[in-house]
Amino acid sequence: MKDHNGLAVPTYDDVLVAHSRIAPHIHRTPILTSDYLNALSGADLQFKCENFQKAGAFKVRGASNAVFGLPDDLAQKGVATHSSGNHALSLSYAAGRRGIPCHVVMPRTAPAAKKDAVRGYGGIITECEPSTSSREAVFAQVEAQTGAEFVHPYNDPRVIAGQATCSKELLEQVEGLDAVIAPIGGGGMVSGTCLTLSTIAPHIEIYAAEPEQADDAYRSFKAGHIIADDAPNTVADGLKVPLKDLTWHFVSNNVTDILTASEQEIIDAMKLTWQRMKIVIEPSCAVPLATILKNRDRFAGKRVGVIITGGNVDLDTLPWVKG
Amino acid sequence: MKDHNGLAVPTYDDVLVAHSRIAPHIHRTPILTSDYLNALSGADLQFKCENFQKAGAFKVRGASNAVFGLPDDLAQKGVATHSSGNHALSLSYAAGRRGIPCHVVMPRTAPAAKKDAVRGYGGIITECEPSTSSREAVFAQVEAQTGAEFVHPYNDPRVIAGQATCSKELLEQVEGLDAVIAPIGGGGMVSGTCLTLSTIAPHIEIYAAEPEQADDAYRSFKAGHIIADDAPNTVADGLKVPLKDLTWHFVSNNVTDILTASEQEIIDAMKLTWQRMKIVIEPSCAVPLATILKNRDRFAGKRVGVIITGGNVDLDTLPWVKG
Repeated sequence: MKDHNGLAVPTYDDVLVAHSRIAPHIHRTPILTSDYLNALSGADLQFKCENFQKAGAFKVRGASNAVFGLPDDLAQKGVATHSSGNHALSLSYAAGRRGIPCHVVMPRTAPAAKKDAVRGYGGIITECEPSTSSREAVFAQVEAQTGAEFVHPYNDPRVIAGQATCSKELLEQVEGLDAVIAPIGGGGMVSGTCLTLSTIAPHIEIYAAEPEQADDAYRSFKAGHIIADDAPNTVADGLKVPLKDLTWHFVSNNVTDILTASEQEIIDAMKLTWQRMKIVIEPSCAVPLATILKNRDRFAGKRVGVIITGGNVDLDTLPWVKG
Repeated sequence: MKDHNGLAVPTYDDVLVAHSRIAPHIHRTPILTSDYLNALSGADLQFKCENFQKAGAFKVRGASNAVFGLPDDLAQKGVATHSSGNHALSLSYAAGRRGIPCHVVMPRTAPAAKKDAVRGYGGIITECEPSTSSREAVFAQVEAQTGAEFVHPYNDPRVIAGQATCSKELLEQVEGLDAVIAPIGGGGMVSGTCLTLSTIAPHIEIYAAEPEQADDAYRSFKAGHIIADDAPNTVADGLKVPLKDLTWHFVSNNVTDILTASEQEIIDAMKLTWQRMKIVIEPSCAVPLATILKNRDRFAGKRVGVIITGGNVDLDTLPWVKG
């Protein structure tokens, strides 16, 4: 960890420690390729399949690093977070592996399936009203009552060091990469990718892919400061959250460019991936492929690592099926 | 090849020849496992993922063996078949790789998507009326006009020797198997599995899994002779066809048992596989898992190879989504 104007920034040493720490608790996920998508894009696409990861998403890397890095006296009080997505599942999974409680604050209105999934991994849910003020109040109460350690979904150096192990593995598995592309929401995965690549492979380009309808990172990147949107709406529901100071540090310093795709382009790329690669991926993971296909000139002829971030999808409401 | 009362039965030497012949044209598909499904079944399930195979299904093994085994003078006239499923795709793919024509007779009423898929792999479609008599008449005409070599979807020693390479790979990839299970329709994959296992690993049990609503193989197995159904109806649309003399030879001599599952059990197992393993599989491939889950006592404690036969699914009409 090093200090940047008061910001605790993880270093590559933290990534090495994280990888040995979490190795027993995560999968070394496989790389898949598709002749069809290579022909379509003109690029050599190497898909790092975190949809096959424990708890169904890369977020288990950062969550496990945070949970297993806690000293025993802190750990016994448990961990806590507010999330209704993959971070809540992942933190619950990691806490369960360590045998400590995981408190999750979720809106009372969250889908029952999401609550069941968190409980399925052993998470303890405290419900709040669906507003930021209620979430913050309820979360403060849970923290005060339990003494649990707060683990932010992305703006946390332990989490970013954990996510950085994904591109470390990618570099170990695939030689000769020209670029790596990952979806961007809060920027945890992209920050981890920046941390690894800027240290051990600084010649590799780093792209972030974002929905047009939630393009706050794109606009922040172009403006040179964080712009946060109020409640963006996109099918890529993992990508609605804004950048924060720590992820902005990496994005502003290390990202080559941010590319965006429309809702229809994202849905088409998602369906194409299911059809051709026979894998179940979340809408969020389809954003990189969507931007590759619409920016052919940028990627053709290059070997590109594409991070498939997760596979937790509601199979009853697929975006291309009319309900 | 050896003769059994006038039947040309492939031998394991044919499998060895087939594997070297088709290796440049197929994927050595990976084995996936799921802690969740292991806990649910009590077994150690090793999934052989032919959904990741070229053309999306194991059928490309048999089709490639038939196509690349043809002498040049025969090959130049092309190959022909009647199928609206994976065999038509696979034969078209293999013929395309060899640069010879592939003629496919399909009912005029087959879904446009299936016709497009065959054409996408270079197949030449001749339409017939949706009746057996029309199909036979049109097919005879195509054969006479082109001189193309007929490759039956399963009742062909070249096709069975090709499908047998799948369990050969499985044995190379996984040690200590107690049983192998595959879905059964016409019996091509099961016959190939019998051919390989009965020769090089005769201690391994061989199970075939079949929809209750198309249980002609089950009833044939119990009766001791082939029983063919007229137009069975099941969500597992790859498994509607009956056994023929050559596949019956293997099924009757080498299969340990045939197990059946209801439509709902098949759909549940399919959805569970998508949710938990994050892979796209056809309804047909879910029949083995469905029978494993309903016959816990039979499989618990065993290491079981489960052949996932294909991943070509119409994503617009999933069986658990109400249209």
